[in-house]
Amino acid sequence: MAQDKKMVTQITSMDENFAQWYTDICKKADLIDYSSVKGCMIIRPYGYAIWENIQKNLDSRFKATGHENVYMPMFIPESLLQKEKDHVEGFAPEVAWVTHGGHDKLTERLCVRPTSETLFCEHFANIINSYRDLPKLYNQWCSVVRWEKTTRPFLRSREFLWQEGHTMHATAEEAEAETVQQLNEYADFCEQDLAIPVVKGRKTDSDKFAGANATYAIEALMHDGKALQAGTSHYFGDGFARAFDIQYTDKENKLVYPHQTSWGVTTRLIGAIIMTHGDDNGLVLPPAVAPIQVVIVPVAQHKPGVLEKANELKELLSKHFRVKLDDSDQSAGWKFSEYEMKGVPVRLEIGPRDIENNSCVLVTRHDREKAFVNLDSIVEAVEEKLRAVRDGIYAKALENRENRTYACTTTEEIRAAIAENGEGFVKAMWCESPECEDKVKEETGVGSRCIPFVQENISDKCVCCGKPAKKMVYWAIAY
Amino acid sequence: MAQDKKMVTQITSMDENFAQWYTDICKKADLIDYSSVKGCMIIRPYGYAIWENIQKNLDSRFKATGHENVYMPMFIPESLLQKEKDHVEGFAPEVAWVTHGGHDKLTERLCVRPTSETLFCEHFANIINSYRDLPKLYNQWCSVVRWEKTTRPFLRSREFLWQEGHTMHATAEEAEAETVQQLNEYADFCEQDLAIPVVKGRKTDSDKFAGANATYAIEALMHDGKALQAGTSHYFGDGFARAFDIQYTDKENKLVYPHQTSWGVTTRLIGAIIMTHGDDNGLVLPPAVAPIQVVIVPVAQHKPGVLEKANELKELLSKHFRVKLDDSDQSAGWKFSEYEMKGVPVRLEIGPRDIENNSCVLVTRHDREKAFVNLDSIVEAVEEKLRAVRDGIYAKALENRENRTYACTTTEEIRAAIAENGEGFVKAMWCESPECEDKVKEETGVGSRCIPFVQENISDKCVCCGKPAKKMVYWAIAY
Repeated sequence: MAQDKKMVTQITSMDENFAQWYTDICKKADLIDYSSVKGCMIIRPYGYAIWENIQKNLDSRFKATGHENVYMPMFIPESLLQKEKDHVEGFAPEVAWVTHGGHDKLTERLCVRPTSETLFCEHFANIINSYRDLPKLYNQWCSVVRWEKTTRPFLRSREFLWQEGHTMHATAEEAEAETVQQLNEYADFCEQDLAIPVVKGRKTDSDKFAGANATYAIEALMHDGKALQAGTSHYFGDGFARAFDIQYTDKENKLVYPHQTSWGVTTRLIGAIIMTHGDDNGLVLPPAVAPIQVVIVPVAQHKPGVLEKANELKELLSKHFRVKLDDSDQSAGWKFSEYEMKGVPVRLEIGPRDIENNSCVLVTRHDREKAFVNLDSIVEAVEEKLRAVRDGIYAKALENRENRTYACTTTEEIRAAIAENGEGFVKAMWCESPECEDKVKEETGVGSRCIPFVQENISDKCVCCGKPAKKMVYWAIAY
Repeated sequence: MAQDKKMVTQITSMDENFAQWYTDICKKADLIDYSSVKGCMIIRPYGYAIWENIQKNLDSRFKATGHENVYMPMFIPESLLQKEKDHVEGFAPEVAWVTHGGHDKLTERLCVRPTSETLFCEHFANIINSYRDLPKLYNQWCSVVRWEKTTRPFLRSREFLWQEGHTMHATAEEAEAETVQQLNEYADFCEQDLAIPVVKGRKTDSDKFAGANATYAIEALMHDGKALQAGTSHYFGDGFARAFDIQYTDKENKLVYPHQTSWGVTTRLIGAIIMTHGDDNGLVLPPAVAPIQVVIVPVAQHKPGVLEKANELKELLSKHFRVKLDDSDQSAGWKFSEYEMKGVPVRLEIGPRDIENNSCVLVTRHDREKAFVNLDSIVEAVEEKLRAVRDGIYAKALENRENRTYACTTTEEIRAAIAENGEGFVKAMWCESPECEDKVKEETGVGSRCIPFVQENISDKCVCCGKPAKKMVYWAIAY
């Protein structure tokens, strides 16, 4: 092997140091690079291709339910951001301010959008006049900026890519239905396509989006037992509409306020994929979003006929899957490690003996299982293996979540469960007082993640104060 | 018709006031809205859908030639922007500066990217080490900011959407070939898909991109005789590589500098479409990027069978084209005007008598020609009509350009040609001195647009000084 070729380097073991393992994968799987802009990351081709696949999938889901894409300015004048009181309080401390254009000082500061409710509302006020103009079902793909103190690639960065849906409806019922519909869309995408099991629920009041009446979220449990909010959906009622004076004439010819939602997922989903499915050999990608679904590795490729056959297979499989043939002069062993690091779901090995037998070897990334497959049914075999990877990694993630979910009735039980079994989801009852919510976090370290739609009765009493419980809540330490 | 329904409103005639006609179309065809952020526009669903079609088309062209998408931070630290002298001189006067993050003043100002050469170079320095790492063929879809004084929707705005390709190559020849390849790709896209004839050529030195060795451009002539630069491609040599210390080990094990290119097109292309093909009835969209290629308008839709047939046709045609059926309760006449304003290439009218005859009416937008078509061959007929629209609007644009292209040998001839025939392209010889270039502009109003790849010999003498000419140049007043 030539000296200047890139070596497949070892990464930190996930059990030894999960945070370092995560960073190693981000770098070694060529997902990101750092730049001199603190807290902002460079998303490299392999990482960006995952995002493009996420985008394509979600975008067609949004369009199938009647949503249209638009593009709003990236700047928000300070006075516009201030129009909704709760909203500005929530976001002002973490926005980047533009104060100069060229050599001139601006007469009013502009913030770089941390989210675009205010811009959408200003636009809605212009274009919504009659009940005939409703609903407005808009979405935007863009980048946003939040000036975070501590940053980590994909999980928390000062700039990140996302989509933000913004919709306006004639009635509260319609808007609430939209909020739930979009949350369900996110959940289905995460479970079916990213193979990440999620809990759907409502955020407690202390955890709501700034300016929302209700915030819903999907919560996933990472391999290390920490929770990750994977997507949110907000119901605004007519609060912003009132602040921005958005009114329409209804069928009875009365002027009324419309009802609003917003919802978003971000490049954070790539972090969720890494921490849900990855292992000590690297990334493990769900087939639906893997930039390469099948990598073909020729064995003894200098032998006559091997590369021809490999190319023939590439051509055939490319009609159905995203395929890469690596015919570089690296060793087969090097290639095996490289594409394991990159999380390619299925590896196809083909050598002289395989060709003699009209077969090849398929290896699934997550369990490294080998199968000898007849070339006559290779398309079906690959399809089955890709399904096996999706189902296998989903089952593994679900098992991890189940093993790490603890039903507790007291704060001592919470502490004990985590001490004994490691971090995870805690299911515990709550009286709905913010004081108890804070106290649980103080005493045990876990914060409320969501009030799940599917409620269970762990006990009749609040885990904290012992008074009558109103809701079962998922608690966890979160990213 | 109900009072609160939107009326199809008249727009200013293009001959009367071309600038107002342009603005009217942007608004009345629902392409844009203004926001309170001066100089930035809101791209509405119909406008954004055109951009999405442009993106899809170009993105697959880029990928077919081996380019990969990445995402760089939107901010550039001031010190990074300053690393290449010419570059910072060109861009510093027109960037937006971020000075505060949340409540804190930043230790170093960040500009919002006006273009990303500096960010790409910093990244290339990290990832390019050996000749095996070359070429790097990267592209990025994003928005950029340039603090312009005078702005117009799509043509010149403080924020705009674009793609920026950035590539690094082992040799100067390879990089130069890339520059030309990408310019040809843009030209082919404009001519085939946008039906806009373009002139390919090199910019004069005074018009080069800040920091480039050579800038190439495609120039189009708008309906009013003004030129519009529709895409550019830059060859950098190793200038940035030296400024950013990007070196690689070549096959002879020597440390050398790679050679670089960048190239981009922007949402300005939507402005080019409007001003090349539009007419007094509104927008005329090239079928390849039209959000709706065929609009079905039922006639006498309350009569039995009409809506059923219209829906049946919609289902059939949607397998091949982007189709909209407008079965709203507006009159057929209102719908005709509305979709003419929106530039839908083909209108399909279907009423009771058509159904009796197993036929329908197809109307092409650009020439309003009606054709009665048998429903048995409707897919083929629509396909043919879409081709007719593309070819028809291309021919019309080419004719306009030819009628407005004047070969001149003196500055008096230039002034006379424009006074007599209106603004247009002037073909005239040039001695290559910047003084003559400036003087032509001063004396006649037209600036150099490009030195076309296809040279003609208009005369042996410079149009300005009369000394021996070296190049034939296209001159025009430009957007």
